[in-house]
Amino acid sequence: MIPVIEPIARLSAQLARLPGVGAKTAQRLAYYLLGVPKEQADELAAAIVSARELVRSCPVCGGYTDMPLCALCADTGRDAATVCVVQDARDIMAIEKSRAFFGKYHVLNGALSPMEGIGPDDIRIAELVQRVDAGGVMELILATNPDVEGEATASYIARLFKDKAIRMTRLAHGIPIGGNLEYTDGVTLAKALSGRTAL
Amino acid sequence: MIPVIEPIARLSAQLARLPGVGAKTAQRLAYYLLGVPKEQADELAAAIVSARELVRSCPVCGGYTDMPLCALCADTGRDAATVCVVQDARDIMAIEKSRAFFGKYHVLNGALSPMEGIGPDDIRIAELVQRVDAGGVMELILATNPDVEGEATASYIARLFKDKAIRMTRLAHGIPIGGNLEYTDGVTLAKALSGRTAL
Repeated sequence: MIPVIEPIARLSAQLARLPGVGAKTAQRLAYYLLGVPKEQADELAAAIVSARELVRSCPVCGGYTDMPLCALCADTGRDAATVCVVQDARDIMAIEKSRAFFGKYHVLNGALSPMEGIGPDDIRIAELVQRVDAGGVMELILATNPDVEGEATASYIARLFKDKAIRMTRLAHGIPIGGNLEYTDGVTLAKALSGRTAL
Repeated sequence: MIPVIEPIARLSAQLARLPGVGAKTAQRLAYYLLGVPKEQADELAAAIVSARELVRSCPVCGGYTDMPLCALCADTGRDAATVCVVQDARDIMAIEKSRAFFGKYHVLNGALSPMEGIGPDDIRIAELVQRVDAGGVMELILATNPDVEGEATASYIARLFKDKAIRMTRLAHGIPIGGNLEYTDGVTLAKALSGRTAL
């Protein structure tokens, strides 16, 4: 008989909902949380609750923040004329890590996907239009993902603003730094070839 | 600039304390928890807190339970004369899964380790002596781990009861079912040879 201890089973089930956590890992984590000092378990629970309570969307860019305005939108040193449009708040962190972009962001909170029933009204496109209409934006870098949904979203936005005097760009495709020609897929290689740069 | 959003940083730090969760996975999980419906995040937090509140040690065997007595100790159909001594409450589940043991358990909550300063008084050995002294125990299966600490703990317990009329056994060592001779380590093979059984 494998005794079912209800509170452990419930904790395992909740942990198993996390991405990349299977039933076995969930059980291991549940038992781990039973074994640590009670403060550590309580701190984790409290951190989950307070993150949900304190973190909100920045009303301008849509990224995460615990302030009235996010640190990037509040930073007057950044170039407000260049807006990088991303699908997800996490993408901001990835781009900031590159230390190569000093403009502002706009988070769409998703990408167009007819398959999943996600249309233009379901993502933050109206907010983008409003932002551009308010003036001052000279370039939109459409940094959506290079997949079907991301490309469709970029084209949709590009069409939306085609009559306005705004530069619209996409991130370059090519071989990743430190990558290997032999292991680079054909589509990426084709993009790297067509986008080759002069020495 | 990578903006530090304090509640997210705190949640990531707490998640990174879980075993097998590195800084990057912790951050991914933190953002995941910000993206799910608030109820799911709250349910996880509540499951952690309630598991710590409701789950206690069984006063007899030392395994986890949310009842006054654990289901295995309360089961009068199990053979109380055979007690399987394990290091950890999780080991009970592993043995129960084998569906080959129908006795009672005793959880030591650790193993002797002079290196880590864990002596006989730090694990549930006094409780085991008490249980045996109360009478009715005919065999102790010393199912501690087959490592230095586990073997030392088993020898210690065996010496402790050597003058009593109790059978003391250890789990057999050998090649795992489905295992491969070629990939079996030498020590295990030596044990499998010395413990060979007649056909």
